[in-house]
Amino acid sequence: MARAPSHPALADGAHPFPHAHLLGIAQLKPWEICFLLDEAEQWVELNRSASKHADRLAGLTQINAFFENSTRTLLSFEIAGKRLGADVVNLGVSGSSVKKGETLLDTALTLNAMHPDMIVIRHGSSGAVQLISEKVDCPVLNAGDGRHEHPTQALLDALTIRRRKGRIAGLKVAICGDILHSRVARSNFMLLGALGAEVRAVAPPTLLPAGLDGYCVESFTDMDAGLAGADVVMMLRLQTERMEGAYVPSPREYFRFYGLTEARLAKAAPDVLVMHPGPMNRGVEIDGAIADDIARSAVTEQVEMGVAVRMACLDVLTRRRRGVEGWA
Amino acid sequence: MARAPSHPALADGAHPFPHAHLLGIAQLKPWEICFLLDEAEQWVELNRSASKHADRLAGLTQINAFFENSTRTLLSFEIAGKRLGADVVNLGVSGSSVKKGETLLDTALTLNAMHPDMIVIRHGSSGAVQLISEKVDCPVLNAGDGRHEHPTQALLDALTIRRRKGRIAGLKVAICGDILHSRVARSNFMLLGALGAEVRAVAPPTLLPAGLDGYCVESFTDMDAGLAGADVVMMLRLQTERMEGAYVPSPREYFRFYGLTEARLAKAAPDVLVMHPGPMNRGVEIDGAIADDIARSAVTEQVEMGVAVRMACLDVLTRRRRGVEGWA
Amino acid sequence: MARAPSHPALADGAHPFPHAHLLGIAQLKPWEICFLLDEAEQWVELNRSASKHADRLAGLTQINAFFENSTRTLLSFEIAGKRLGADVVNLGVSGSSVKKGETLLDTALTLNAMHPDMIVIRHGSSGAVQLISEKVDCPVLNAGDGRHEHPTQALLDALTIRRRKGRIAGLKVAICGDILHSRVARSNFMLLGALGAEVRAVAPPTLLPAGLDGYCVESFTDMDAGLAGADVVMMLRLQTERMEGAYVPSPREYFRFYGLTEARLAKAAPDVLVMHPGPMNRGVEIDGAIADDIARSAVTEQVEMGVAVRMACLDVLTRRRRGVEGWA
Repeated sequence: MARAPSHPALADGAHPFPHAHLLGIAQLKPWEICFLLDEAEQWVELNRSASKHADRLAGLTQINAFFENSTRTLLSFEIAGKRLGADVVNLGVSGSSVKKGETLLDTALTLNAMHPDMIVIRHGSSGAVQLISEKVDCPVLNAGDGRHEHPTQALLDALTIRRRKGRIAGLKVAICGDILHSRVARSNFMLLGALGAEVRAVAPPTLLPAGLDGYCVESFTDMDAGLAGADVVMMLRLQTERMEGAYVPSPREYFRFYGLTEARLAKAAPDVLVMHPGPMNRGVEIDGAIADDIARSAVTEQVEMGVAVRMACLDVLTRRRRGVEGWA
Repeated sequence: MARAPSHPALADGAHPFPHAHLLGIAQLKPWEICFLLDEAEQWVELNRSASKHADRLAGLTQINAFFENSTRTLLSFEIAGKRLGADVVNLGVSGSSVKKGETLLDTALTLNAMHPDMIVIRHGSSGAVQLISEKVDCPVLNAGDGRHEHPTQALLDALTIRRRKGRIAGLKVAICGDILHSRVARSNFMLLGALGAEVRAVAPPTLLPAGLDGYCVESFTDMDAGLAGADVVMMLRLQTERMEGAYVPSPREYFRFYGLTEARLAKAAPDVLVMHPGPMNRGVEIDGAIADDIARSAVTEQVEMGVAVRMACLDVLTRRRRGVEGWA
Repeated sequence: MARAPSHPALADGAHPFPHAHLLGIAQLKPWEICFLLDEAEQWVELNRSASKHADRLAGLTQINAFFENSTRTLLSFEIAGKRLGADVVNLGVSGSSVKKGETLLDTALTLNAMHPDMIVIRHGSSGAVQLISEKVDCPVLNAGDGRHEHPTQALLDALTIRRRKGRIAGLKVAICGDILHSRVARSNFMLLGALGAEVRAVAPPTLLPAGLDGYCVESFTDMDAGLAGADVVMMLRLQTERMEGAYVPSPREYFRFYGLTEARLAKAAPDVLVMHPGPMNRGVEIDGAIADDIARSAVTEQVEMGVAVRMACLDVLTRRRRGVEGWA
């Protein structure tokens, strides 16, 4: 299995992860990404074992502040923290004081005053997580902010690819569908590009954002052309709930032109890996039979890697405050 | 106190509980039911003691996936898991990805990929829990599915009766009220019948389902006749929220003909035990004074037995994966 | 730092906190209040340390039953219980059986049957918490009931003042704003009065309740006069959601006459301490720049003291059942 790219400074005992927060992939150097992936491997093993509990974060408090609804990401972070022994509490969107007129920053200062050791935040506005991180005294982990970033999703995708393909560098990865509204796509463009993959954005013209040039991504509006020879095909959910005022394609129409079918998948490499961050809309962006074919589809494996990657992030980001040797 | 009926195979070291899941009472043999009741006794004791915590399930992850609202059942399972030392997480109905178009099976596969050691499910559709159990790698416990089954409720009712009456076999048990919409009634018909009680279904004609013959139950539409000589009277909640399009009796009308009053209760045995699975509608299906008379009413004791029975089920169902001797 | 007033009986080994529940400040004697504040100090220290976990409440079950929405109070009690090692479960307002027609007392009896060791309750009706406390076998902590009391808020305010000012006796404390709807104000009137502060109620005539005479409080409808020489200014949130049918001032109008501005604050003592129970409406009841000035504002410190005070209350109230020496 591929390990972290060598980093000249590391040989001198330098810090392999100097960041106080995990705000996005944009801030991470390639070896820092690989370090997190390497760290996650131990938690994959733990999660597959009979007793899946470590005391790594015992005595620490984790607050999950989700201002947007979520199932899998919240559950994944909650399980990650509890398996590591942290005291985990959730701040739900409905119970939020924001409804009583409190500003986001005041909510952040309130959480901070309870002395958490890590705050995991999902928010509907791009940049909200960074804003909070500047006001609090503990590591902040971005669990998705607006259309901006979703770094742990990109990390779990990378871990899945690395474990299935043995490498990321040189792979042709086609990210397909509603790229316009997808923070997952953005984080993946950066991460996969940083690790040397050849990344493609495949979407209808209305869902392909302008300004993709900055990402070293090749754009396609024709699905067949975008899939040609791809080693990995990553499908995205059609986020119709974010298309207020814009043209919303019907599921049938969308599937006809941009759904992943057997015929289309035949254009990709013979050993193509199919991925989807979930939740999936079968028959809209992906043929259900492809999703269920575990030889090709890594959809559930992505979920599994998600817990491991989040355990790694929680562990690594709190090393300094736990006084781990070499991190203090 | 009555113990489990002897089972010829058990003497040879056979497994007293061979099931991977707890889907319903229908799958259980009488001695398997009694085994679970016997196991629950130790947890009754623990829950009454000063320190109510055991490490039985330490290192295990319990997911409570409740797709229907619930207070007491969710709280009961949550307390049961936490007292046994499990890492417990809840998947709420409102945060569910089902709202984003995900199918139930994809939700199940997502939960499964997080490597839970037990999944507790409540769902509005009969059969949904079994469907999920076929797709996951860990024990699934049915916390109520549609009109189908609610096995832990029947088990806690049985434990309550056995502790109050010393036995179940031979008792006359009248189950009264909205039987049509009641999974509690269905599970109880099977369990009490299996353990040798003489079970009666007492309901208005519109709330008495067809096809009760398969259950060894005697049907009554006259409340007085149904209560005559009963050792146990189990009242059910009028589930008006499930009566869409059907005739909904007014509370006053319903109480007049089918409410449990002192006058009606006088028809039952002198030492009759009154039960209700809760939540109760006082003055609709039961006179509040009867519910509050702790000499006759076991309503709160049922809740207490619920936590103990659920601890027993969580413990027994995970023995194989915990490598308990004789269960591997 | 000021310590508890001496109590003649304590010298003879009498109990410094004889109450089974924490229903309100009204029941507490001055030395009992000071005892709780003294106890909280150790938890302030723990919460500021690297490992913030104690096993004080291990083996105990804490139920947080919040029938009204809350962010900070629920989170604060949840973190308090978890840091002390309790098994903590939340009963949310939306999942409540109350919606199925269950009475509050039946809900209380149901919770009680699960053998909790402490129940924390928030309820929209004044007196609801006391009603519940009379029906259950464990300590009940009032987390706010209607317009009645919010004792842990008053305790955390007192701890904040005592730590900042070194004393409470003799301080001029102006409580300003929507006093009519504020249980926080009521609890503070009693607590601060009991500890010897000189308390003022400053509010528009429509938000100043009748019958404040019983509290040893001086009333003001002119903000400048109310703030004159104040050592502590405690601003309250304008609870427009509770003003059904009444005149609701516009935010702009309210701020003009009753908002805390630099100009108004200049009337107070030079070393005035500014407080707010949160959530704050900046520009309505308080100028944001004052709230953010940490030299004068104790807003986030109040949140911090909240966790510590709640840990103290949970610990002290369960000593009897934990068999702590001298408390059995």
